[in-house]
Amino acid sequence: MRFAPTSLGLLAVAAAALAAAHALSAEPPAAAATFDAEGRMLFPADYREWIFLSAGRGMSYAPVAADQPAPPFDNVFVDPAAYRAFVEHGSWPDGTVLVLEIRGGTSHGSILQGGSFQTGDPLGVEVHVKDTARFGGDGWAFFGFGGKDPATMIPRAASCYACHEANTAVDRTFVQFYPTLLPIARARGTLTAAFLARESAESAAATR
Amino acid sequence: MRFAPTSLGLLAVAAAALAAAHALSAEPPAAAATFDAEGRMLFPADYREWIFLSAGRGMSYAPVAADQPAPPFDNVFVDPAAYRAFVEHGSWPDGTVLVLEIRGGTSHGSILQGGSFQTGDPLGVEVHVKDTARFGGDGWAFFGFGGKDPATMIPRAASCYACHEANTAVDRTFVQFYPTLLPIARARGTLTAAFLARESAESAAATR
Repeated sequence: MRFAPTSLGLLAVAAAALAAAHALSAEPPAAAATFDAEGRMLFPADYREWIFLSAGRGMSYAPVAADQPAPPFDNVFVDPAAYRAFVEHGSWPDGTVLVLEIRGGTSHGSILQGGSFQTGDPLGVEVHVKDTARFGGDGWAFFGFGGKDPATMIPRAASCYACHEANTAVDRTFVQFYPTLLPIARARGTLTAAFLARESAESAAATR
Repeated sequence: MRFAPTSLGLLAVAAAALAAAHALSAEPPAAAATFDAEGRMLFPADYREWIFLSAGRGMSYAPVAADQPAPPFDNVFVDPAAYRAFVEHGSWPDGTVLVLEIRGGTSHGSILQGGSFQTGDPLGVEVHVKDTARFGGDGWAFFGFGGKDPATMIPRAASCYACHEANTAVDRTFVQFYPTLLPIARARGTLTAAFLARESAESAAATR
């Protein structure tokens, strides 16, 4: 078989088109967490288009005044690639980024006669990143953003690390507060021993 | 110019590869709302992977008892194509699907000492669909899902239609409760006259 110049041109077109198709289908997504030369994390600008895990209101791990006025909401998002991995395996891959967004709540607006809704700009954004090569240890690090400037890592001595190590249901993350993920972790057997022990103790106390 | 059989074969390869590339880049996404032969809407199974708009708690447009125990949360999602259109234009295209998910809230669990989080399976899923060709009029229809079975359209006499017509900030939707969308609608000039009039009245009352 002999390729005429015309045929070679078509072959090149075919190869280019196939390469384009491959690029569109197989290109890995951009990393959810990006860092500058000083190791500061860049603000994850598109997190509101990630996968929503759950929302809570006024959640506190320390005692709070009973009459706390208008407590804020918290919304939790995870990057889509990590979400898909969790749905499949019940665990978080390196590259996982979880975002906790704090937003004000109000009971006054529109035609509302009861309850509360979210309003205004975020009050803060806290980020939890798993990158074993970058951070070592269990792979996780926290970053706190007040605005959209790059953030330095929260030091390991901060209480968030010890609390997440002691109390989370799956790999340093509070999956017990994410109702669509908890059944997946249970099915995949990835719940921590500490979570299962606490669950057993609470169940025994409830039936006593 | 004459195409030899070999050249024609390569042309077919090139055309197929280009078609594949086009399909990957430009294929419209599957419709967010699908219906059976009887006009019932099929359950939108993947709505938790759509774009989260906001969450509220115990929201009610009618008076509620002050001591309502453990009010549920509501989470609102929109299909990604409609979200992108809204970000660009401040309005909803035909094919838009909004999902209101009701989920139970609890203040008791894990290490929580204040506030509340979502737990368990959804208590219900309400859907708002814009499809002018299918529904006529303003194009919107409501569907209520108790489980995952197909749902018949909620009749037009139901109060939800009149309430959304009278009180919503953008095209029958409560964009005033979606803090990332409200500024977009304001910038695009798509807020309803009714919403703007109410906002002016409330602002005047607040400064009086």
